[in-house]
Amino acid sequence: MEKLTIAIDAMGGDLGASAMVKGAAMAMEDFPFLEPVLFGDEKVLFEEAKKYGGMKIVHAPTVILPSESPTLAFRRKKDSSIVMGLKYVKEGNAAGFVSAGSTGALLTGATVIIGRKPGVERPALGTLLPTKKGHVLLLDCGANMDCKPTYLAQFAQLGTEYMQKCMKLDSPRVGLINVGTEDEKGNAAAKEAFALLNGTPGFVGNIEGREILSGEIDVAVCDGFTGNVLLKFTEGFAKTMMGMVKEELLATTISKLGALMAKGAFKRLRKRFDYREVGGAPFLGLNHLVIKAHGSSDALAIKNAIRQCVQYQ
Amino acid sequence: MEKLTIAIDAMGGDLGASAMVKGAAMAMEDFPFLEPVLFGDEKVLFEEAKKYGGMKIVHAPTVILPSESPTLAFRRKKDSSIVMGLKYVKEGNAAGFVSAGSTGALLTGATVIIGRKPGVERPALGTLLPTKKGHVLLLDCGANMDCKPTYLAQFAQLGTEYMQKCMKLDSPRVGLINVGTEDEKGNAAAKEAFALLNGTPGFVGNIEGREILSGEIDVAVCDGFTGNVLLKFTEGFAKTMMGMVKEELLATTISKLGALMAKGAFKRLRKRFDYREVGGAPFLGLNHLVIKAHGSSDALAIKNAIRQCVQYQ
Repeated sequence: MEKLTIAIDAMGGDLGASAMVKGAAMAMEDFPFLEPVLFGDEKVLFEEAKKYGGMKIVHAPTVILPSESPTLAFRRKKDSSIVMGLKYVKEGNAAGFVSAGSTGALLTGATVIIGRKPGVERPALGTLLPTKKGHVLLLDCGANMDCKPTYLAQFAQLGTEYMQKCMKLDSPRVGLINVGTEDEKGNAAAKEAFALLNGTPGFVGNIEGREILSGEIDVAVCDGFTGNVLLKFTEGFAKTMMGMVKEELLATTISKLGALMAKGAFKRLRKRFDYREVGGAPFLGLNHLVIKAHGSSDALAIKNAIRQCVQYQ
Repeated sequence: MEKLTIAIDAMGGDLGASAMVKGAAMAMEDFPFLEPVLFGDEKVLFEEAKKYGGMKIVHAPTVILPSESPTLAFRRKKDSSIVMGLKYVKEGNAAGFVSAGSTGALLTGATVIIGRKPGVERPALGTLLPTKKGHVLLLDCGANMDCKPTYLAQFAQLGTEYMQKCMKLDSPRVGLINVGTEDEKGNAAAKEAFALLNGTPGFVGNIEGREILSGEIDVAVCDGFTGNVLLKFTEGFAKTMMGMVKEELLATTISKLGALMAKGAFKRLRKRFDYREVGGAPFLGLNHLVIKAHGSSDALAIKNAIRQCVQYQ
């Protein structure tokens, strides 16, 4: 098999270079044709990479911190791991880019440096959420606030392509997130987007909030404001519900004992909700795939983020 | 204590007149000064009401069904329980109105017949969601799709008043739902709404999706598109999560046994998420309070919807 090069921002994650490099090594085991190129401080990376071998290192002396202004940092830190990695991809040296660093800098940088695919007005950030039957790709999750109807229609197309390539679905079912299933429902953008999407392959129509995780939809499209609120709400809701479950289970001795016996079930449940198993958030609509890995990604999460890039080719 | 009259659409709910009338009777037990006036088919209502006594009946021969076009039905069915009940309130005969009927017809009818409070551009539909510490009022939940910044600022004020009156909070904490906590975040409407709300009493700033249920916020403001999607998503997410919990608990004998022992805890948990305990969705910003009860409301839910009207006075 032909070699496949993926560029990795080895400095961005909260857990530091060791998790990023270990993740790359794990991905190499799964995909022997993979050639990771690590961007970051060469001294640090050399120490980490020599444990595994087979990785190329490109020296990028600075890091863009999540606390910095994305646009300013992106303009000033030309020698940062994000900017240098993206340029490497842009120049055709790698097929994709993975970073667990500043979201803002990554999205701005990727759009400016790598550039949009022909016909795509705005790239979108997707997130894979667990459903009863598998996963649904929610997009846009925050790259675009006020969306024109054409953006939404393009998101549907981008999401479809991603689910075909990475989730091996023949014909992903696309739903437009809305306040009702009737054709004429919604805000101005959703109404017009419905008209654009109606009749296109895979489009099942408007879906309500309760259908997003039903397992009947593979791609759920909305503007980045709604998507971002939804995504973070998921996090808060799961935490609140789990807190309540815990509180009630600890309320009596017998339920406490019951909880202890059901420990394995709760553990399996946590695994189903574990973002590390899924990988990162694909930033779609650019000339190459960029994956935003969670800031606190460990090696497993990074391995899966790299896998996303591999499968997308 | 002075008498308090509340008008009730006794025909609208899925469970029929008996649940509505029983709910009214339960509310009368809690509030001896309460005088419910039932709107609907007088023969049916007479049979139901004679079980309890003390209720006035106003004959309204037709019902607006959820399947009918709200605007058309509202214009044509002048003798429906919703239209007649709302007129009764408008004319000063009752302090509030409770209906479990067609949401669309109720919201349209209430706005046109009862009319908006001075200074309110758009009334908003609120929903009380359970948090770890109590409840948060989410509004707007679907009455207004594309919202001007002034609408959002007014929703904050309407929510504050409701939580003061009905939840007895001295100074409710108001958050503007957004994609980040920084001042300059959001779509165009949220950015401008932030500027309008900044510095007003109780306003804590932008909140992210994950903070809505944290218990740190009493009123969470957003446009009706986002709110409706969120609200229905909550429903779907709880169902998906509970389905997964069940699946995992049934997967092994020991966890099955554990689940059986923890049955009481799960029952208490369901009660915390039970909308019937909270009542209905307040439609705020009109000259009188209108409560939209869930279509499948039973007597307990209706009693609590009437309680909301009583407490709001």
